[in-house]
Amino acid sequence: MKKNTKVNAAILIIGNEILSGRTQDTNTGTIALWLNSIGVKVQEVRVIPDIEETIIETVNHLRKVNDYIFTTGGIGPTHDDITAQSISKAFNLNYEIHKKAFQILESYYKPGEFNEGRQKMVWMPKDAKLILNPTSGAPGFNVENVFCLPGVPSILKSMLGGLKNEIVGGEPILSYTISLRTVESEIAESLTNVQNNNKDVEVGSYPFFQAGKLGVSIVIRSEDQSKIDTCNSQILSFVNEKKIEIVDR
Amino acid sequence: MKKNTKVNAAILIIGNEILSGRTQDTNTGTIALWLNSIGVKVQEVRVIPDIEETIIETVNHLRKVNDYIFTTGGIGPTHDDITAQSISKAFNLNYEIHKKAFQILESYYKPGEFNEGRQKMVWMPKDAKLILNPTSGAPGFNVENVFCLPGVPSILKSMLGGLKNEIVGGEPILSYTISLRTVESEIAESLTNVQNNNKDVEVGSYPFFQAGKLGVSIVIRSEDQSKIDTCNSQILSFVNEKKIEIVDR
Repeated sequence: MKKNTKVNAAILIIGNEILSGRTQDTNTGTIALWLNSIGVKVQEVRVIPDIEETIIETVNHLRKVNDYIFTTGGIGPTHDDITAQSISKAFNLNYEIHKKAFQILESYYKPGEFNEGRQKMVWMPKDAKLILNPTSGAPGFNVENVFCLPGVPSILKSMLGGLKNEIVGGEPILSYTISLRTVESEIAESLTNVQNNNKDVEVGSYPFFQAGKLGVSIVIRSEDQSKIDTCNSQILSFVNEKKIEIVDR
Repeated sequence: MKKNTKVNAAILIIGNEILSGRTQDTNTGTIALWLNSIGVKVQEVRVIPDIEETIIETVNHLRKVNDYIFTTGGIGPTHDDITAQSISKAFNLNYEIHKKAFQILESYYKPGEFNEGRQKMVWMPKDAKLILNPTSGAPGFNVENVFCLPGVPSILKSMLGGLKNEIVGGEPILSYTISLRTVESEIAESLTNVQNNNKDVEVGSYPFFQAGKLGVSIVIRSEDQSKIDTCNSQILSFVNEKKIEIVDR
């Protein structure tokens, strides 16, 4: 049976280091590409500081207007890691030791190494569901439609696979890119016509510089391959007419 | 005279290509670092799709709760570039040809090249103030506390310098980083004490992997160098006590 419900998500990046420009966020791209592949569309990303009140307010807003929220950051052992306590407050749940998480980390570390700092990482909202961490032990957690992941990109990436069965997506969002040796202004009018003829397809136009030359990538996105094909053939039609070169990219 | 008012900004990234994960945003970092240097702190970043209603609502919220907003993207010549018309609606201003922008682009392009597509880029909110573009001609614009910049990173970067006199910042936000050969859990408790002793300083802890080894960077941020120095000496004190190696990074 064809699934055709639209499923949406928001990504919430928690961390002063992104807002200060010190650290470049890459988790948005990682999560968005993975969600696309299972039929979930990211409709909003927010980056907010490590401030409890801000985290609570933002989570409580986003979880009501999205099917899913994914948070990154703030679940480590230091004083600026306040995601778990903030999520507990957002859901009015006790912030307490999660027994299964405790067992996981107790057996992950060598005897004597599961110190007070590390024990902070097993404090979670009551009855949170764990998100297993194949890289460094400390699990993320999930409460209702909110999934809390760490900020370190390689660890986050390794945890997504285990989430697949927790997320119910719609049809995967398909995308096709055609890159042209032209500038946007040359194709703007023709592309507007294509978009108007294909209103339920997302047609994006993105200029690029490659090997010193200008170009434009046109990205067609839809859950329906036949709609992408129709749109693409209309684009190829004006591309041929205008004698624009198609380039690899 | 010392300026000590806190000045805040939000960054609003407009573009489906960031939400889909196709394009990695780098403009947040560029704008945030530049704003820090002139004493403006980014307190929120949002990424939203090319949907007029969403742009209007988000801009109208953010401009009320921040001293400044910087938008990126959506000011090019194609159908998916809808920032200027959306900002016009957000401010209830006519969306019309900006005479000065028209003159700039008319003289920028060779005769005959200032076509319909390119002319779309001179449509702006009535009486918008231009933000000059030393790279590719087409200006950005400013209405009240909202500054609209392009999405292409190199062009955006070249336009920030010209904005310096338009933004009134507070004290520049200073930052000092000390990198340690340790793991967060080893220093979590000591660092919590330092943060508690220096409540108006922002102390962040960020794990890193470098040359196969784990480390932690501690970042101290404040407008006041002497507060950073005090905080740093308290950190060095526990670092020496614990015999932790300081590393270059």
